[in-house]
Amino acid sequence: MKRREFVGGVVAAAGLSGCSKPEAGCNTDTSASTETFQWSCVTSWPPRFPGLGMAVENLASRLERASAGRLKIKVYGGGELYPAFEVFDVVSRGVVEMGHDASYYHKGKVDAAQFFTAIPFGLNYMELNAWIHYGGGLELWRELYAQFNLVPFLCGNTGVQMGGWFNKEINSIADLKGLKMRIPGLGGEVLRRAGGTPITLPGAEIFTSLQTGAIDATEWVGPYNDVAFGLHKAATYYYYPGWQEPGPGLECIINREAWDSLPVDLQELVEITCQSITTDMAAEYTNGNANSLRQIQADPNIEIRPFPDDVLRHLKTIAREVVEELASKDPQVAKISKPYYEYLEKMEANTRISEQAYLDTRKL
Amino acid sequence: MKRREFVGGVVAAAGLSGCSKPEAGCNTDTSASTETFQWSCVTSWPPRFPGLGMAVENLASRLERASAGRLKIKVYGGGELYPAFEVFDVVSRGVVEMGHDASYYHKGKVDAAQFFTAIPFGLNYMELNAWIHYGGGLELWRELYAQFNLVPFLCGNTGVQMGGWFNKEINSIADLKGLKMRIPGLGGEVLRRAGGTPITLPGAEIFTSLQTGAIDATEWVGPYNDVAFGLHKAATYYYYPGWQEPGPGLECIINREAWDSLPVDLQELVEITCQSITTDMAAEYTNGNANSLRQIQADPNIEIRPFPDDVLRHLKTIAREVVEELASKDPQVAKISKPYYEYLEKMEANTRISEQAYLDTRKL
Repeated sequence: MKRREFVGGVVAAAGLSGCSKPEAGCNTDTSASTETFQWSCVTSWPPRFPGLGMAVENLASRLERASAGRLKIKVYGGGELYPAFEVFDVVSRGVVEMGHDASYYHKGKVDAAQFFTAIPFGLNYMELNAWIHYGGGLELWRELYAQFNLVPFLCGNTGVQMGGWFNKEINSIADLKGLKMRIPGLGGEVLRRAGGTPITLPGAEIFTSLQTGAIDATEWVGPYNDVAFGLHKAATYYYYPGWQEPGPGLECIINREAWDSLPVDLQELVEITCQSITTDMAAEYTNGNANSLRQIQADPNIEIRPFPDDVLRHLKTIAREVVEELASKDPQVAKISKPYYEYLEKMEANTRISEQAYLDTRKL
Repeated sequence: MKRREFVGGVVAAAGLSGCSKPEAGCNTDTSASTETFQWSCVTSWPPRFPGLGMAVENLASRLERASAGRLKIKVYGGGELYPAFEVFDVVSRGVVEMGHDASYYHKGKVDAAQFFTAIPFGLNYMELNAWIHYGGGLELWRELYAQFNLVPFLCGNTGVQMGGWFNKEINSIADLKGLKMRIPGLGGEVLRRAGGTPITLPGAEIFTSLQTGAIDATEWVGPYNDVAFGLHKAATYYYYPGWQEPGPGLECIINREAWDSLPVDLQELVEITCQSITTDMAAEYTNGNANSLRQIQADPNIEIRPFPDDVLRHLKTIAREVVEELASKDPQVAKISKPYYEYLEKMEANTRISEQAYLDTRKL
């Protein structure tokens, strides 16, 4: 029996279930099942960084094991092959096949991408998953990225982030005036309009900037990553909640030609594995955050405190204005903004009497 | 080239990454990669029932597509092959290879299994995932099920359930006295100790029993499933929150010999796919619940209302007593109860300043 004949026979069985993912494009070539794919994956994270970096390592090792070595992916940390913020470009151009990234890093180039990571005061972890997988979000995302020759997959989530580390007390809206804070993206723009000075810094400079007083505050992720960065040694107040990123989703992006070159079974495997990473990464964060929070709570030099309600209310009002202004200038933002906020309203009503009501009860 | 030689070469590549799941047992036979497996999967759900039933259909179709037809699973609804509550037994005995079920249905046979579905006032969706995948839960689960010749996988979650449908108002603890309510498991035992009469009914009889007044109340799942069952047409009050099941996980159970017969790549695929179903099913429920809640809210004959705080506080106290009593009689329960409640305490502290604080903020 010739190799091609035999292999074709095996793969024909998969064809029976049909191609269920037309929106992602679908390979109907069933003769490629023993072909081996050696891909590179560029990321924006330090190699094997807790949570973000581990998730993409897990993605690669799962794909290799479950494909019996037919899909091997070498993962590169941010800056190892290309600068961290060029992930979108190099995958779009086909220089590498795959990237693991946060879609709001593409702000400026494609502002509408931010909806698929997080919007201040927007969808949380469970709600974002619902929107992407059952609420029409994935279709909007794939349509948006098609112009860049990219196929996106939701692949991980940190859960809600923390408000950040502060060396100034925030007791009123007035305390935001002049506040120098490392906070990127839409959250930064909200702070700017509230009178603060948002600053963008590479991860490696955050600790020193906070310690020397070059900045007054910084947000990063949550206890798990913040302690890994040593931020608890550079600030006095740890504020909550993280209004700026309520459940940021991560993305796996694949160059369209690379995607089309995969046989149907490996395409399916990639989709499944990305979705498994969402559960896995959120579980790693939830577990790690709880452990690191204990450490922070035991430190007498740190005070964990909530933002005042009127500050949060003020930031929430501004956040909506920021997105509406973007939508008025950018039709791609407008197209996604409308269904996003309609979905958010529906989700808020449901979450209030389900997850939120339960958590309130447990606290009684 | 002979078939065996060729295939062996392909699979050898997978062996490089090693067997990472010693707790689940691990097949090191790398010569089986073209073998086709035709399995049956028995479940406790009506065929293709929204959420529960769709999740296991998705599990089967994903496994078939991603394995290029090498792992085909025929799914049977509850009662189609064997009675719904015999899933655990028939998979344990190897009569069928796989089951999709809720572990708290094994109450009586193996009381300790209930921790892996839900405990009243216990871990919610995100926290259960963290415990199972990163907090030691999976190891306890696999150890518990080993005596039954079963390998368990977390495979789906409905999210927090609702308190249920009532034709009597619950304004005080006294109103629980004599209440005839369909509520199974630990929740039912809690109600019994609070003076009520818990009743177990097959799903098909719930609607009529509620409508005729044979029972005063019933819990089922949440808006998505409840509306599918027509419960909104048989009761006046829809109570929240669902204290009895804060984020029930579903299980995929595989007979040990069937599991051992799979090659390494298919074992990995099963683990990944089960974890993907957890995200997918919770997303389906979150989306579906929000849609069905709108329908319920628009119905002038239904009043959606919260249980009084003192009722919830009372039920919470009893719930802990019920589990402690079980633990005092059953060493398997005791072994899991201790780490479970330690984990819950750690999670509550973290959830309070993260997810819960965020939801409180969004409501401001």
